[in-house]
Amino acid sequence: MTNLTFLSNRKTFCIVVALIMAINFADAQQNDSQTHRVPAKGFAVYSHEGHFHTHEFTRHAVGGNDIQIEILYAGICHSDLHAVWDEQANFGIHTHYPMIPGHEIAGRVTKTGENVTKFNVGDFAGVGCMVNACGKCSSCLAGKEQFCENGTVFTYNSKDYYHENEITMGGYSNKIIVSENFAIKIPKNADIQKVAPLLCAGITTWSPIKFSNVKPGDKAGVAGFGGLGHMAVQYLVDLNVDVTVFDVNDQKREAAERMGAKRYVNVRNPQEMEGLNNTMDFIITTIPVDYDPMLYIRMLKLGGEMAVVGLPPNSNINISKLPLGNANRKIYGSLIGGIKETQEMLDYSVSKNIYPKVELIKANAAEIDKAYKKIIAGEVPFRYVIDMSTLK
Amino acid sequence: MTNLTFLSNRKTFCIVVALIMAINFADAQQNDSQTHRVPAKGFAVYSHEGHFHTHEFTRHAVGGNDIQIEILYAGICHSDLHAVWDEQANFGIHTHYPMIPGHEIAGRVTKTGENVTKFNVGDFAGVGCMVNACGKCSSCLAGKEQFCENGTVFTYNSKDYYHENEITMGGYSNKIIVSENFAIKIPKNADIQKVAPLLCAGITTWSPIKFSNVKPGDKAGVAGFGGLGHMAVQYLVDLNVDVTVFDVNDQKREAAERMGAKRYVNVRNPQEMEGLNNTMDFIITTIPVDYDPMLYIRMLKLGGEMAVVGLPPNSNINISKLPLGNANRKIYGSLIGGIKETQEMLDYSVSKNIYPKVELIKANAAEIDKAYKKIIAGEVPFRYVIDMSTLK
Repeated sequence: MTNLTFLSNRKTFCIVVALIMAINFADAQQNDSQTHRVPAKGFAVYSHEGHFHTHEFTRHAVGGNDIQIEILYAGICHSDLHAVWDEQANFGIHTHYPMIPGHEIAGRVTKTGENVTKFNVGDFAGVGCMVNACGKCSSCLAGKEQFCENGTVFTYNSKDYYHENEITMGGYSNKIIVSENFAIKIPKNADIQKVAPLLCAGITTWSPIKFSNVKPGDKAGVAGFGGLGHMAVQYLVDLNVDVTVFDVNDQKREAAERMGAKRYVNVRNPQEMEGLNNTMDFIITTIPVDYDPMLYIRMLKLGGEMAVVGLPPNSNINISKLPLGNANRKIYGSLIGGIKETQEMLDYSVSKNIYPKVELIKANAAEIDKAYKKIIAGEVPFRYVIDMSTLK
Repeated sequence: MTNLTFLSNRKTFCIVVALIMAINFADAQQNDSQTHRVPAKGFAVYSHEGHFHTHEFTRHAVGGNDIQIEILYAGICHSDLHAVWDEQANFGIHTHYPMIPGHEIAGRVTKTGENVTKFNVGDFAGVGCMVNACGKCSSCLAGKEQFCENGTVFTYNSKDYYHENEITMGGYSNKIIVSENFAIKIPKNADIQKVAPLLCAGITTWSPIKFSNVKPGDKAGVAGFGGLGHMAVQYLVDLNVDVTVFDVNDQKREAAERMGAKRYVNVRNPQEMEGLNNTMDFIITTIPVDYDPMLYIRMLKLGGEMAVVGLPPNSNINISKLPLGNANRKIYGSLIGGIKETQEMLDYSVSKNIYPKVELIKANAAEIDKAYKKIIAGEVPFRYVIDMSTLK
């Protein structure tokens, strides 16, 4: 207050006017953003019981750097299930209902903000697991926006700091509005029905393969042969890596071998598990349920690396066990990938014709409920994709 | 048996004679090895109560590739305490009593087998944590005998496959007999009183610094500033690394700064713990008691590495926490180092005058008991070394 006493009445008057103008301007902006909110429609769960319902809602207005995408296809990822059932408290994540999941999104641009340079109306565009980040912290500058030190905004069930803290709504819907910086260009020649899961399952497996510098001739293990695992196998086989697939039954043995895996191991068959210790340069564990991580760590050669991308809620490593007998094997977690490498992954996948195995389902609540049941029962053919064009 | 029926009587006779001769020869060898066993004296514990007693015993004979070392100095390592009290069941290790610990040994060669080329009588020689391995498996061929796939023979409380499965006896004793391949040459100009702890504390910290390729200008953390930690600090400072030391009180702050650490953090002071996340290229955790590993993993930069060399019995990492928020940080265990790199470490340490801070104690049971109590109470000045020349 002491400093303010030096202000003349006139100055005080000017400051007050400026403040009022600023408040009005902010209000106007907010009203503008409110009045230009975009009506949308999708499939939401209303409680942790996890049944889907057709849900109408609005998305924030198309800003200067934004594009609006008509969603054509939305993949169903296993982590959607955890979010739907509010099963991520372990990780400090709680589900806000109503919640629309979906972070594997492929569609067509229908509108572009005035500053957009990367997209034109009519282009294919994709959205993965995140829709915003600060762009200024060391993680963002390193191209790892998923670790933004000021808070990454994820595609659903996430507080959007850049849009009045609204909770984001995901891809099981007919449209999405996103900054062009967080949209991925999908080449015209892409097999558009199959692209969506690349934006989570693809990048999540591609990124650690690059991070661990896996090379032709290496021996690699892929633990868990589902949506993520079958992408890992394809990238590794494409790299001329000797691949062993691990799963808990024999149902996918043929598919793994057809995909180019050298070996398929049913981990419940003790005979098949013999002779594997100290043999692998790289292992990626995509398993989303609890297991013993030491089982796989022991399979690594000296200097080998294990990337954990699945989220088994209660699987622990006793760190004292690492020096004794399992030393010099590196373990790390990996979470999707940055925007730049997601674009690289997508361009590469399309150019090499590497896609997930997908089964299209219709865009209605009962179909999604049914798909979820099949995923839990392990009866999914790798990836369900919702054909959003069938939304009524 | 079918094939044997084709043998002539004469052939059968020859085989039987050969077998008898072979058995006699083996017996003779064993008798020779028994009759040439070498009387020795040291300090053993007789039960998990862990009190030391003067103990007379014999060591195996000096074989063709062996040297006999008069032990001058034996370091006391924290893991000796766990062995003495039979506290390693978690790792599948049980203590055989009477047990003589000690795997930091510096002495003088008093006898050499007929095939020995590396040592002459009168040379200084050291023995670290292991005394034999197969030399043929992939780990041994990679110079990592501590991970011998056919079983490393450790310096004490370990079954010696190469000497009739006797249980090895450690360095709190007046002499040791070891293959020259597992003895380390100690340069003549070494400060011999201080060399012994290099053979465990030195190599245990040197090896992961090399394995993680820590470079000048990197930022590193050393968690736990005891026998291992203070060696890590010296190697890192020598490498021109920016070092932060973590311990649980303020007692060693001055010592850390004198050793060249940039910062000393008392982890029990929340203020000092602020601002450390995402700042380190490398962390070595030497802490032997339980702690939360995530505390340190969070301090690593993207791509940073954490080496675990301490053995906190019940410290776990929930692997699901690695992808979320802590991804792309690598964690691994490290266990001592191979013979070749131990020799490199020792030569380097002596040439750069890098030694542990030691306090000599006399070679009697009461003194060792007292030292153990002080270690447990955290009152040790980094490393106690038993001056074996005072053994009566």
